[in-house]
Amino acid sequence: MGKKKPKILVASGVNLDLLGTREPSIYGHQTLKDIEDLVRQEFSNKCDLSFFQTNSESEYLQILNNGWDGAVLNPGAWTHSSLALADRIAGLSLPCVEVHLSNLAQREEFRHRSYLAPVAVGSIAGFGGYSYVLGVHALLHKLTLK
Amino acid sequence: MGKKKPKILVASGVNLDLLGTREPSIYGHQTLKDIEDLVRQEFSNKCDLSFFQTNSESEYLQILNNGWDGAVLNPGAWTHSSLALADRIAGLSLPCVEVHLSNLAQREEFRHRSYLAPVAVGSIAGFGGYSYVLGVHALLHKLTLK
Amino acid sequence: MGKKKPKILVASGVNLDLLGTREPSIYGHQTLKDIEDLVRQEFSNKCDLSFFQTNSESEYLQILNNGWDGAVLNPGAWTHSSLALADRIAGLSLPCVEVHLSNLAQREEFRHRSYLAPVAVGSIAGFGGYSYVLGVHALLHKLTLK
Amino acid sequence: MGKKKPKILVASGVNLDLLGTREPSIYGHQTLKDIEDLVRQEFSNKCDLSFFQTNSESEYLQILNNGWDGAVLNPGAWTHSSLALADRIAGLSLPCVEVHLSNLAQREEFRHRSYLAPVAVGSIAGFGGYSYVLGVHALLHKLTLK
Amino acid sequence: MGKKKPKILVASGVNLDLLGTREPSIYGHQTLKDIEDLVRQEFSNKCDLSFFQTNSESEYLQILNNGWDGAVLNPGAWTHSSLALADRIAGLSLPCVEVHLSNLAQREEFRHRSYLAPVAVGSIAGFGGYSYVLGVHALLHKLTLK
Amino acid sequence: MGKKKPKILVASGVNLDLLGTREPSIYGHQTLKDIEDLVRQEFSNKCDLSFFQTNSESEYLQILNNGWDGAVLNPGAWTHSSLALADRIAGLSLPCVEVHLSNLAQREEFRHRSYLAPVAVGSIAGFGGYSYVLGVHALLHKLTLK
Amino acid sequence: MGKKKPKILVASGVNLDLLGTREPSIYGHQTLKDIEDLVRQEFSNKCDLSFFQTNSESEYLQILNNGWDGAVLNPGAWTHSSLALADRIAGLSLPCVEVHLSNLAQREEFRHRSYLAPVAVGSIAGFGGYSYVLGVHALLHKLTLK
Amino acid sequence: MGKKKPKILVASGVNLDLLGTREPSIYGHQTLKDIEDLVRQEFSNKCDLSFFQTNSESEYLQILNNGWDGAVLNPGAWTHSSLALADRIAGLSLPCVEVHLSNLAQREEFRHRSYLAPVAVGSIAGFGGYSYVLGVHALLHKLTLK
Amino acid sequence: MGKKKPKILVASGVNLDLLGTREPSIYGHQTLKDIEDLVRQEFSNKCDLSFFQTNSESEYLQILNNGWDGAVLNPGAWTHSSLALADRIAGLSLPCVEVHLSNLAQREEFRHRSYLAPVAVGSIAGFGGYSYVLGVHALLHKLTLK
Amino acid sequence: MGKKKPKILVASGVNLDLLGTREPSIYGHQTLKDIEDLVRQEFSNKCDLSFFQTNSESEYLQILNNGWDGAVLNPGAWTHSSLALADRIAGLSLPCVEVHLSNLAQREEFRHRSYLAPVAVGSIAGFGGYSYVLGVHALLHKLTLK
Amino acid sequence: MGKKKPKILVASGVNLDLLGTREPSIYGHQTLKDIEDLVRQEFSNKCDLSFFQTNSESEYLQILNNGWDGAVLNPGAWTHSSLALADRIAGLSLPCVEVHLSNLAQREEFRHRSYLAPVAVGSIAGFGGYSYVLGVHALLHKLTLK
Amino acid sequence: MGKKKPKILVASGVNLDLLGTREPSIYGHQTLKDIEDLVRQEFSNKCDLSFFQTNSESEYLQILNNGWDGAVLNPGAWTHSSLALADRIAGLSLPCVEVHLSNLAQREEFRHRSYLAPVAVGSIAGFGGYSYVLGVHALLHKLTLK
Repeated sequence: MGKKKPKILVASGVNLDLLGTREPSIYGHQTLKDIEDLVRQEFSNKCDLSFFQTNSESEYLQILNNGWDGAVLNPGAWTHSSLALADRIAGLSLPCVEVHLSNLAQREEFRHRSYLAPVAVGSIAGFGGYSYVLGVHALLHKLTLK
Repeated sequence: MGKKKPKILVASGVNLDLLGTREPSIYGHQTLKDIEDLVRQEFSNKCDLSFFQTNSESEYLQILNNGWDGAVLNPGAWTHSSLALADRIAGLSLPCVEVHLSNLAQREEFRHRSYLAPVAVGSIAGFGGYSYVLGVHALLHKLTLK
Repeated sequence: MGKKKPKILVASGVNLDLLGTREPSIYGHQTLKDIEDLVRQEFSNKCDLSFFQTNSESEYLQILNNGWDGAVLNPGAWTHSSLALADRIAGLSLPCVEVHLSNLAQREEFRHRSYLAPVAVGSIAGFGGYSYVLGVHALLHKLTLK
Repeated sequence: MGKKKPKILVASGVNLDLLGTREPSIYGHQTLKDIEDLVRQEFSNKCDLSFFQTNSESEYLQILNNGWDGAVLNPGAWTHSSLALADRIAGLSLPCVEVHLSNLAQREEFRHRSYLAPVAVGSIAGFGGYSYVLGVHALLHKLTLK
Repeated sequence: MGKKKPKILVASGVNLDLLGTREPSIYGHQTLKDIEDLVRQEFSNKCDLSFFQTNSESEYLQILNNGWDGAVLNPGAWTHSSLALADRIAGLSLPCVEVHLSNLAQREEFRHRSYLAPVAVGSIAGFGGYSYVLGVHALLHKLTLK
Repeated sequence: MGKKKPKILVASGVNLDLLGTREPSIYGHQTLKDIEDLVRQEFSNKCDLSFFQTNSESEYLQILNNGWDGAVLNPGAWTHSSLALADRIAGLSLPCVEVHLSNLAQREEFRHRSYLAPVAVGSIAGFGGYSYVLGVHALLHKLTLK
Repeated sequence: MGKKKPKILVASGVNLDLLGTREPSIYGHQTLKDIEDLVRQEFSNKCDLSFFQTNSESEYLQILNNGWDGAVLNPGAWTHSSLALADRIAGLSLPCVEVHLSNLAQREEFRHRSYLAPVAVGSIAGFGGYSYVLGVHALLHKLTLK
Repeated sequence: MGKKKPKILVASGVNLDLLGTREPSIYGHQTLKDIEDLVRQEFSNKCDLSFFQTNSESEYLQILNNGWDGAVLNPGAWTHSSLALADRIAGLSLPCVEVHLSNLAQREEFRHRSYLAPVAVGSIAGFGGYSYVLGVHALLHKLTLK
Repeated sequence: MGKKKPKILVASGVNLDLLGTREPSIYGHQTLKDIEDLVRQEFSNKCDLSFFQTNSESEYLQILNNGWDGAVLNPGAWTHSSLALADRIAGLSLPCVEVHLSNLAQREEFRHRSYLAPVAVGSIAGFGGYSYVLGVHALLHKLTLK
Repeated sequence: MGKKKPKILVASGVNLDLLGTREPSIYGHQTLKDIEDLVRQEFSNKCDLSFFQTNSESEYLQILNNGWDGAVLNPGAWTHSSLALADRIAGLSLPCVEVHLSNLAQREEFRHRSYLAPVAVGSIAGFGGYSYVLGVHALLHKLTLK
Repeated sequence: MGKKKPKILVASGVNLDLLGTREPSIYGHQTLKDIEDLVRQEFSNKCDLSFFQTNSESEYLQILNNGWDGAVLNPGAWTHSSLALADRIAGLSLPCVEVHLSNLAQREEFRHRSYLAPVAVGSIAGFGGYSYVLGVHALLHKLTLK
Repeated sequence: MGKKKPKILVASGVNLDLLGTREPSIYGHQTLKDIEDLVRQEFSNKCDLSFFQTNSESEYLQILNNGWDGAVLNPGAWTHSSLALADRIAGLSLPCVEVHLSNLAQREEFRHRSYLAPVAVGSIAGFGGYSYVLGVHALLHKLTLK
């Protein structure tokens, strides 16, 4: 990877615009902006970070092929329904880490299956906004190994 | 948590004694000792670490109630079969983080269900020995919040 | 709720633009405009009504957080596939009534499960365009109770 | 339908005699008599209403063939078990509307399947005693169309 | 069986009171009385026949232990739901033949399982009222073998 | 059907050559020849009977289109496996009655599904060789109605 | 509970009238009267006992709300089919103990699910008539704790 | 169809923009433009061809009602998830042929169910870009029959 | 493939001898001979065609190893039951194209699984006799690529 | 059983060492020692009692063949996973009674299946520590019958 | 069994004619003739061996009742589909040993169920042609015990 | 393998200590010692045999990595539950043959799935103690091929 800092996408999907207001007993009071600040603070001199959120699945698919070195992805509910997202990641051979705020294993049955997991490097779930921090750690470590 | 360093258990379960020799295409060439060194190097001045491995499920259950502040657990195959382990963690109210070396979502169907996940704080899988490093990170962050 | 008339969204989802032309043996000859007229005629002096239709799921999600007092929703096929819609309604704590033109219980198996139903106040199905009229009745009654 | 007011049966099934006392967190404090008053008040000059409750399935089946123009039915737990009720409604070609006090989609899995729904004109659930009011509305509208 | 004519019960269950009026495309125009006449005409000098119909499951259970030598049973919808009926026949060791007017294999999935069949001598389905005639034939043949 | 006697095929399928020797606790001691004699004795002046047995599925399929007015079929184990047999009967519009010696509902789960039943006029099971007699009765009655 | 003896209902459901005659290899030779005598002998000075048996589900439901302090229930086959019974017990908040003569786990699959169990205090099965004795023991102990 | 050349839509869905770069072991090296050239070369004087690709499901739905005589559709991953697409085709009564580049039967279980197939004239899969050529052949043949 | 015309087998399986007479609403009025003429007319100077039909599965298996360059196979009902056929094609490494007259996705559930599809180059269904024409097109294109 | 007091094993399995501290909302505040005292007080002059607890499954299996006349077993989580325990009890023909503190029917689905139940005399669940008392009652009664 | 050598059938079923040419990565390079030679060499003086192979299921069924003392059977794909084969072996009470070349547990799910296994003495799989040798060993040992 | 005799482990698992006393109708009267004698007698000059039995799963896992050339394993009930055993064998790349005394296909459903089978060379079941003899035969043959 030479001296250039790796270009990292941190992309949050559907309904994550509601973060901080929505069901705090599950997701806590942090907003997506709070999480961005937390991540930038820790990693801004180690990589080139781009944050993105959308409620449109096609926009989410489109952002993936912009020449990133890797991605940290929290697709929200699409995790459990979007075959298209999984296909695109496989197609682009994009190294990505799956992150979730909540511990999906403690929630409804249909949140236990992730279409993203099999095409991701690995998965991290249950640590609130800190899951994003761990996700960037893991991705940078992975990119170092390549 | 005051000035005392938290006491952390890092417990690996069945067959992890074979690590480094066993199916390297899935688990890599790191031994459990290599992982211990990696973790100690990063965290030894932040917490009081104890490493443990056993192929006996009863020993694994027994080690859990030794007054730990938290635990990073990789139970190996027991992840998918040991209801007793999950019950014990719930009974002891022990904060623990589940870690796996491989990305379970890419492997056989029966490795997709974890009895441990619903009683853990959160889960991390797919980053080889670095999953343990991320696990201690996550646990320390969790303990700080308490 | 004082003297202000409640702001009510009546939102129809995917393929409901075809209403009146599409499979009349199932959906009848009413267009969506006919239904709007029927509903406005009965309720325009009891509440402030906004009608909306789209074939874009992200637009449908977006319209929900515009400060409505409640919503009458007929998401069409998304009823059976959109986990994201259910999550958003739960996240916004928006009181909504689910309505369907046809009796879903008489149709294909996959139309028997609704992701919307568990997060709605209640559901009404099988009365053609009149399901919307009953839906607004039910929603207004619900808002009165609050 | 000429000048004669339609004869409408409003029949409540098993355990609805307990209404108002039973699990108020699910069913509220209204008694079946309160609901009857509510419905009579709104519809007594539009139709000829008969109210009926029984804990005996055979009595419930028997009451159906008394020359009604239509029926509003809340069979309670029989909704999910009585194939005989569904067969009888189909056999009598009796126009009926299914109503439920609670939102069945929020309750146990076995309450999600209704044997009645496929032979009813339509279904209404989740609005407490007001579900009955909506049910009579829907039935009268349906009878007008015939 | 000596010179005494065997005492045979022919018992029809729930909704069979509607026969001849109900869904003639499935069940034909014969009434239960027509079938009784048909059966009496063919067998009245070979056995002592008692015909019975009820919509009450407990009455149906009760009639079974009246000292019959055998029974021809068409329980209607109870075929698919009444574990109690099957238990009672097993308990009484009553030789019985299961008959159905329609070919259940051509109808809905839930009509394919019969609780009665495993405790009956055998089953006959699909021949309209003539199923009863065949049923008495079969039962008499069976009683002769004993 | 005029004065000509109807041409009836009575076709027994795989393993029924073993009848009388094979598992007498299930199938009894009658041979297929005994059953033929029993049937001929009762019906030879009412119809033109042809008996056939084969262990070859293609021969069984082939015999069906020989200009029969109807058929009594006991396909043995093919009942539960031969989609081809069902398709052929539907294709030929051949009126047929399904018969079985044993009560299939008392045997293994996989013997409960019959591919033949949905394309047959009706089914008779559990009366030993007498099932064939009842089958011809039923078929002749059916042919009379046409 | 003061000095008044608690009022206890011991209610047996469908087919238990056959006890002592029915399938003795499963249920033994005791009649329901024998069991009543056994129970009265042991508990008549500790509580006020009422015994009841019926084959009518509605009568069984009706007897439950007669001001009992608790009930010992053996509903027979309704255990596995009556959602209405479970709903009624939950609705009445009646402390009850489920008893069965036979060990249901050794019998057919459909006897393994009990609708009653989740709304009972606890369950006892497999000890013949002595299950009733244990059931009254358990209920009295439970009532003491309140 | 007279002398006017039929207007044919050839619409490719999600991720097909990646064709030629994505997983060549499954999809080969042809780009979507190569396939368009191949198809135009063979059919441009027999019909009026329009090619379309999008990663937005709503755009894909929208393009369908532009007055086409028929359509050749390869919806990519939406094949297995989009109930809305199937509903729209049924609603528009648009004759369409389903095509896939790869042999779906050789891939993951969830790619074996197609929501599109039941509303299409027919399906073609497994011939790479040539599936499109066969699809236009099939569609033109179908339109000739009308 | 040089100058020699490829040797192509076109093999139809069980019940396809009935084509043209059998259920024309599903299969149309074409006979197998009509289809052969249609195919020969289009391809006889491009390849060496052999047509074959049998109702015997073993004959169907046997014909496959006669030195063909490829095969177009419509096995009829064996598609859904013959594991042996799939094994043989895999064993012979015979390039084959699966064709069906009807759109199997619109028919019974058990016709949705094909044992042949995973070992075929690709599949074509729903275009009546023209499916065979498309099948030979597809096979010749495939053989050209080799 | 003569004058010798029967030798009874009361064996508690995995995690029951935590009793009294673990999830008191489910298991209450009694320790295993409290239960032992309760049982000894009631039965010490009727039988020779041995109490045992272990978290090692092999120790639990081993203790069973020590010449007991019968056993009261609460295997904890092994109830739902240990096929070996069930096999051993069947192999030793040891009369045993299954007891559970909590009402398993009110807990997670996987706690509804017991491998022990089919090889036990009977089962008792839901009465806290008093389940053990009832269990010894039941076992002594059973031993008396032998 | 006296001094006569036992008559043993070694029967291979469908597609085993391809052995040695077919998928050598699964089945190896041995032909069926090679296996016959191997078996004859080891056992020709201990028993009277007959080898048989066919692709016709009816021929396979027919060969079984030729007065063999026992049989070693490798039915190929029929193992997983032929209920008729299992019925015949049970009917003939023929002692047989099931053998397979490959380890079926490592292959597709549908190859894990054997209809033959429950009616065989025992099963041997995974040792290539040597499975036949072991099969004859096992059968001879079994015949000695009789 | 040169002139050194191969080191073979013959390891029996849980409950096999009971052999000879336990359920003789299933397992016969041979003890494990009898089997050892039988095997030693036949193979002691062909290989170096070690026999082992334990009821502790961890001991069973531990014994596997002692430098064996191969193993014959009968894990008893662990066959159906121990994912850890299968993982260990795969990890050690230990050639092993699975043996069972009884024909598992004739027993309960849960005994039909073996976790061991997919990682074994092959499996042998149903020949009592002779299964061990066949297992050593098979293993030695396998080791010769390497």
